[in-house]
Amino acid sequence: MPRLPGEQDPLFHRLNASIQFDRRLWPQDIAGSRAHIRALHAAEVLDDDELRVLDEGLDVVAGELERGEFEFLVDDEDIHMAVERRLTEIAGPVGGKLHTGRSRNDQVATDIALYVRERAERGIELIADLMERLVELADRHRDWPMPGYTHLQRAQPVYLAHHLLAYVWMLRRDAARFAATRESAGAMPLGAGALAGLNWDLDREGEARELGFEGPMQNSIDAVSSRDPVLDYLAAAAICATHLSRLGAELVLWSTQEFGFCELADDFTSGSSIMPQKKNPDAAELLRAKAPRIVSSFTRMAGVLHALPLAYSKDLQEDKEALFDAVDSLELALEAAEGMLSGVRFQRERLETAASDEFQAATDIADLLVRRGIPFREAHGVVGGLVRTALDRGVGLADLSPEELAAHSELLDDEYHQVLRERSWLESKVSAGGTASGRVAEQLERAREATAAVRGLAGAPVE
Amino acid sequence: MPRLPGEQDPLFHRLNASIQFDRRLWPQDIAGSRAHIRALHAAEVLDDDELRVLDEGLDVVAGELERGEFEFLVDDEDIHMAVERRLTEIAGPVGGKLHTGRSRNDQVATDIALYVRERAERGIELIADLMERLVELADRHRDWPMPGYTHLQRAQPVYLAHHLLAYVWMLRRDAARFAATRESAGAMPLGAGALAGLNWDLDREGEARELGFEGPMQNSIDAVSSRDPVLDYLAAAAICATHLSRLGAELVLWSTQEFGFCELADDFTSGSSIMPQKKNPDAAELLRAKAPRIVSSFTRMAGVLHALPLAYSKDLQEDKEALFDAVDSLELALEAAEGMLSGVRFQRERLETAASDEFQAATDIADLLVRRGIPFREAHGVVGGLVRTALDRGVGLADLSPEELAAHSELLDDEYHQVLRERSWLESKVSAGGTASGRVAEQLERAREATAAVRGLAGAPVE
Amino acid sequence: MPRLPGEQDPLFHRLNASIQFDRRLWPQDIAGSRAHIRALHAAEVLDDDELRVLDEGLDVVAGELERGEFEFLVDDEDIHMAVERRLTEIAGPVGGKLHTGRSRNDQVATDIALYVRERAERGIELIADLMERLVELADRHRDWPMPGYTHLQRAQPVYLAHHLLAYVWMLRRDAARFAATRESAGAMPLGAGALAGLNWDLDREGEARELGFEGPMQNSIDAVSSRDPVLDYLAAAAICATHLSRLGAELVLWSTQEFGFCELADDFTSGSSIMPQKKNPDAAELLRAKAPRIVSSFTRMAGVLHALPLAYSKDLQEDKEALFDAVDSLELALEAAEGMLSGVRFQRERLETAASDEFQAATDIADLLVRRGIPFREAHGVVGGLVRTALDRGVGLADLSPEELAAHSELLDDEYHQVLRERSWLESKVSAGGTASGRVAEQLERAREATAAVRGLAGAPVE
Amino acid sequence: MPRLPGEQDPLFHRLNASIQFDRRLWPQDIAGSRAHIRALHAAEVLDDDELRVLDEGLDVVAGELERGEFEFLVDDEDIHMAVERRLTEIAGPVGGKLHTGRSRNDQVATDIALYVRERAERGIELIADLMERLVELADRHRDWPMPGYTHLQRAQPVYLAHHLLAYVWMLRRDAARFAATRESAGAMPLGAGALAGLNWDLDREGEARELGFEGPMQNSIDAVSSRDPVLDYLAAAAICATHLSRLGAELVLWSTQEFGFCELADDFTSGSSIMPQKKNPDAAELLRAKAPRIVSSFTRMAGVLHALPLAYSKDLQEDKEALFDAVDSLELALEAAEGMLSGVRFQRERLETAASDEFQAATDIADLLVRRGIPFREAHGVVGGLVRTALDRGVGLADLSPEELAAHSELLDDEYHQVLRERSWLESKVSAGGTASGRVAEQLERAREATAAVRGLAGAPVE
Repeated sequence: MPRLPGEQDPLFHRLNASIQFDRRLWPQDIAGSRAHIRALHAAEVLDDDELRVLDEGLDVVAGELERGEFEFLVDDEDIHMAVERRLTEIAGPVGGKLHTGRSRNDQVATDIALYVRERAERGIELIADLMERLVELADRHRDWPMPGYTHLQRAQPVYLAHHLLAYVWMLRRDAARFAATRESAGAMPLGAGALAGLNWDLDREGEARELGFEGPMQNSIDAVSSRDPVLDYLAAAAICATHLSRLGAELVLWSTQEFGFCELADDFTSGSSIMPQKKNPDAAELLRAKAPRIVSSFTRMAGVLHALPLAYSKDLQEDKEALFDAVDSLELALEAAEGMLSGVRFQRERLETAASDEFQAATDIADLLVRRGIPFREAHGVVGGLVRTALDRGVGLADLSPEELAAHSELLDDEYHQVLRERSWLESKVSAGGTASGRVAEQLERAREATAAVRGLAGAPVE
Repeated sequence: MPRLPGEQDPLFHRLNASIQFDRRLWPQDIAGSRAHIRALHAAEVLDDDELRVLDEGLDVVAGELERGEFEFLVDDEDIHMAVERRLTEIAGPVGGKLHTGRSRNDQVATDIALYVRERAERGIELIADLMERLVELADRHRDWPMPGYTHLQRAQPVYLAHHLLAYVWMLRRDAARFAATRESAGAMPLGAGALAGLNWDLDREGEARELGFEGPMQNSIDAVSSRDPVLDYLAAAAICATHLSRLGAELVLWSTQEFGFCELADDFTSGSSIMPQKKNPDAAELLRAKAPRIVSSFTRMAGVLHALPLAYSKDLQEDKEALFDAVDSLELALEAAEGMLSGVRFQRERLETAASDEFQAATDIADLLVRRGIPFREAHGVVGGLVRTALDRGVGLADLSPEELAAHSELLDDEYHQVLRERSWLESKVSAGGTASGRVAEQLERAREATAAVRGLAGAPVE
Repeated sequence: MPRLPGEQDPLFHRLNASIQFDRRLWPQDIAGSRAHIRALHAAEVLDDDELRVLDEGLDVVAGELERGEFEFLVDDEDIHMAVERRLTEIAGPVGGKLHTGRSRNDQVATDIALYVRERAERGIELIADLMERLVELADRHRDWPMPGYTHLQRAQPVYLAHHLLAYVWMLRRDAARFAATRESAGAMPLGAGALAGLNWDLDREGEARELGFEGPMQNSIDAVSSRDPVLDYLAAAAICATHLSRLGAELVLWSTQEFGFCELADDFTSGSSIMPQKKNPDAAELLRAKAPRIVSSFTRMAGVLHALPLAYSKDLQEDKEALFDAVDSLELALEAAEGMLSGVRFQRERLETAASDEFQAATDIADLLVRRGIPFREAHGVVGGLVRTALDRGVGLADLSPEELAAHSELLDDEYHQVLRERSWLESKVSAGGTASGRVAEQLERAREATAAVRGLAGAPVE
Repeated sequence: MPRLPGEQDPLFHRLNASIQFDRRLWPQDIAGSRAHIRALHAAEVLDDDELRVLDEGLDVVAGELERGEFEFLVDDEDIHMAVERRLTEIAGPVGGKLHTGRSRNDQVATDIALYVRERAERGIELIADLMERLVELADRHRDWPMPGYTHLQRAQPVYLAHHLLAYVWMLRRDAARFAATRESAGAMPLGAGALAGLNWDLDREGEARELGFEGPMQNSIDAVSSRDPVLDYLAAAAICATHLSRLGAELVLWSTQEFGFCELADDFTSGSSIMPQKKNPDAAELLRAKAPRIVSSFTRMAGVLHALPLAYSKDLQEDKEALFDAVDSLELALEAAEGMLSGVRFQRERLETAASDEFQAATDIADLLVRRGIPFREAHGVVGGLVRTALDRGVGLADLSPEELAAHSELLDDEYHQVLRERSWLESKVSAGGTASGRVAEQLERAREATAAVRGLAGAPVE
């Protein structure tokens, strides 16, 4: 706020005012004010009438904001001043009592913590939706073989379900991060005043309960200096967005003519302004591209806090745009990922052909030799020789003659050809968490449980 | 590993080899191999003799590594190959059986997860040490007034204990982040093989228990593709380092001739190569400077993972240097912070003089008017007028004449002067979490409990 | 653009559409279209009438956009489609000829390059303004001593002019970076088509000249894949903002009650919502806080480009918000810095008192001994002893008795006291670039020349 | 340096000492000391004998360092102290005169600037090597068609030469960035002393000339506070590494079985520890992965400088590891890229088959209609219809019957089939910078000139 009316340089006003972005916090701000007036009333700072007038006034203000009818004035520096200004217009001088025992420092920290808790909750819900979609997709593609890749080279075949479920477990961890964020933002700053506490012993426990916090913050300086809720949200969002960027990258790759593993639905692709034949995976590309944006919001906020003396400094105003941009980007990315996957069509034949590339059975042949007593490292060498022989002759492993096999090892008998039989390399991966059908079925069950657990997190009452 | 011996370009070798940094993971690598051979034995891949020979061989290798006697060879591309190579030298061809049912992909992911769990634990211990030091320091400075700052302007006085305790609560949250990291890294990658699982149904539950994990990872592709433990550690470390940077910045500031609030101990300062009078707070400066380093490790690792198709890609090798650098930087910073604080001497007189700047009582005067029924916003205006009058006359608020007071408000009577009496502005901050002595005493108690809780986290057995 | 009308999922539309932010590029887009139709006319793709109709149509569109009367429709995916859609409404079917021999890929790259060139130019102008302000301020404070700091400890006194001029040289380098950015963005993408070039040999040299480029880009794939202009601008802006953050941090520090070196003007400070006495340096704080924001825009854009296959991918759409935010933040920061400095009042007495802290002459005493033949390292030791003696006795260096002096060195005679005389330590720094008055006068002259050179850069016609 | 011998806490020593990494700067440090003693001699601080003794002593020290025989002691805090300590051992007490008129603050800034200039030069050389390799490769693959991609979808065919040359132009801009870096680091900090200048008017112009700088820095405070050379190098390296990451990503992609566009040489790939058939593009993957590492070094250094008051602070010590890591990473990446490309084998048949996918001619058909007077937007619609008809029938565009063509437009006559003839779509891209053979030949010539220009930059004498 200006020290004297009308004394701000217009440049300063442009730099300083936050109303153009912090107005988004109005629901949190109003909720905080409601809890605050109740605490002031309990402390006998407000009498019954004053409480009623302010409460009704806040109703009116909230209604105007909700309906988009609130008129922001040029001097409304931030959402806090705007609400108080309007409240005073409506309720008269008693509006000037709202800011008793409160500072914008603890007020904005409270708004932010409330907001983070809500968006963390929303993040968990959207993650549950996406997990559900992936589980459903995996279920429908349980027995579709595809190549598994390392170094983007075909390595060992897997079932498509197995590949898709990998993302479910990443998302499960993401949900845990947002739950931790919600918990870490569970202590209420309100009541810290400017930095030192208040001249009134307001009922902070009660205020906290009313606002859905677990309790008040323990130290008033920490309360106005910290932006840990923002950092926690941004770290969780950055990691989640990085997971989504890998999904986006794979959808782009799989949609190429060269891979041809899937086709994205028309309603999540676009055409070209110049090449009429194009079907561009724009949504998958943007899914891929959002991660650096959100990661950089974390860097930015950590940078703002770097070396910043306690308690509140204006630098902290930089928290909101970084946070809002990350929230919007991540929530949109999660929704779009779910939408995109709901329409994707996998190409069974292309996947299966690619998966039947026989060199992907090389490990299985080595393991056959191991079962016959050859140390793995030696068996690895024998199969390396077989692979080179086959490549040199331009044939598959199954096409090698008994003599060629014998030249590499005397232990390569009929079972050699059994190992190379279709699907045997998939079904041989019998270890827990492996791609054999039985294991994938087990995993699907657990993935369903995990999804339900995430749903539970989202709906969890604040403890 | 080279596809054929001796075929690597020297440039490729320089780019590709990780042994110069991943050798640090030898304890985790040996532990993983021990658990693995036991599982191979249980699965009858190794007989009793082979198990014994490999186990004893690993003892020898571990001993050599521990004593710094292990000779790394130019062809030891990474710690995994170095250990296996040496084991085979010692144990003979049976060493070649070690890699049965295992890939470097699941092996390195397991090493990393184990390492992260240990460093997270160590982080918690160091945080507990620092919290303890802060609590002790706060206890010794319970009733030392100092100015509290907002915008680095004196705002309202607080007790030094109160300011120091603010850092305790930041650290409490940091400890929770490392505990979450340890938990998030609690699922074991081993048994995922290259990416698809194993041809043997090894007892992954048993291996996990032996290695102190909570269980195996559920999806073999996720197991070799993920670096979530690294991201979680780096996010936690980045936030913790950012907190420490604020402490470092304040120590630098408080050590200036201008503030003069404290003097750092000789053993944590240095002199000048040219100015013999200087006593430089190098340690505090470096505490301040480590945050961007650790934050950038997070950015770097998230960047490496951005858009990376599943499963393992060589890009993931970039995880280790980013992680090791952050671990070293953070652990040193935490230890140095504790050491620095153990020797800091606060300057009571300088703090007290600064705290007695009477304008810091302005809010209290406003609140006095509020108690007499003036809306806060109006009271704020009245006191603003008093402040300007005092500043214009170059006197303190207590020096204003009755006439001057009356000119601003008729409600400014004797209590006005009581409010301005020394310390009354501190003791008036009676709200929970505020700086009044009683509240600080309460808070100290809770800070001790919080420290004990963090100690408990550090020693917590893996669930 | 949709492949078929109405087929986009609303979520996809939200993710994909850029019109809400890229509309800012309308002047560049219209300019590019004007140059393009002239080239199409020269290539006989458009006849005279068509050229005239399109040209006049573009006039109308530009007018609507300029006056804020342009109505964007829900299907206007981006500024390119919006302009073409409106042009076709105005000009009829011939509007459909505008996109001949052009793709949105080369079109948007051209818009961005033009925009970067303009903002780089504007950056240079604003830098020149700020340099001028600093030079003016330095000139007015030529002979105001203040402490020079290392490690934020008083080290050696300097003239305030000297300190202020340090920023002039940082800004001089910043201007060179923006000039390099403008040059690096000097090649025109237009004419690259979608990626492979055009089916018409349009006069790209002529188009480039018309648009103020130095020439066309040499490779059509590079033209649509590159966002180097954005990266160059962001790197330059990040470094400049980092310089400004140091200035902001110093203004915050100098405005504290403890330093008291300056007072910021009322129109660049604000008050407190709760503490009527406060005068908060919000503008200086925000100057400090913008650097991480702009640095993170660089990180973000580099992250988007990381590992991105050629040629155009939708990920590149992420360039604009990162760039626009950095432009707005930097330009505002530069203007606000200039405004803030125009009203700052330095406190001569506070500066002078701080500068007269005698220990800052320690190096001069050491150098006196050096002039008498003692190796510097030994002299440094002697003076260290003097400093400790003085500190132990609680006196200044000038207060040491002849016996005390003699106990440390026999060479400390009358000249010792001359060295300690006021200002002699400032005037002794006679090396080029040092703080002695004569050197500062020289430097002021060069700073004026540098400012003029930057003005010249800003106005430089495109070569 | 310690204020008194032996008084440092071991933790402080670990945090504070830089010798373990700054020893790399010894050649710059010795060069700076040589120039410095010559200036001291000219200023008559050293006599002829002293100059000779110090000069010869520095020879001995340099020899020891070069041969790796220099013994660093535990108290050698940094390279500056180590060299002076050893020099004094060799030359006796006169060694104590070396530090006359110099501080570690200006000394280390000078070392860093010299180092940056050398590495910028080296960067330019390595860029020239890589450009040369790309030009040679392009020349050998002038007429090899391949698909050009947008959104990673086949868009329009290009010649492989054209695609490869795209990287040449990126590298050309990178070289300009390193040249600008070298120039920006062209002013010498030496002579700034601790921060205020020196008590001797040393010949800074002469020192600068001797060290290969363009002149001395103009302001002593700026000289010791700035790390602009580091920022400039890191920004240039970050952008260059980002370009290389795109090349790495394409090599990974092109080496997949699905694309099959190239095969990397054995000496730049590696095998699998478990899958004997694998040929992994590790080098290309690491090329891709280095960009986030180097980008994060920029972020880190900018973060360290953020909000840092002038002049020297210890935080600046964080510059070296960030810089060294980036130098090592980038130089290795540039060399490895050149090495990798020298052995890559492109698969003509695979490229050609992919390029002959006829839908890539869609734009050409639209342009045919345009040449017959149809507005492009309308033509685009007609061809969109043709594409859908062909896709629905599962045939190519050339397979559509005259009736089918007529149903979409009466203008699709024989020329329609000419447009679809092999290579015509490549040769039709006749605009400057396009992919038609003649244009590629022109471009190759210019790329050779550009490479020569970069070679010239590398060898450019310092102006």
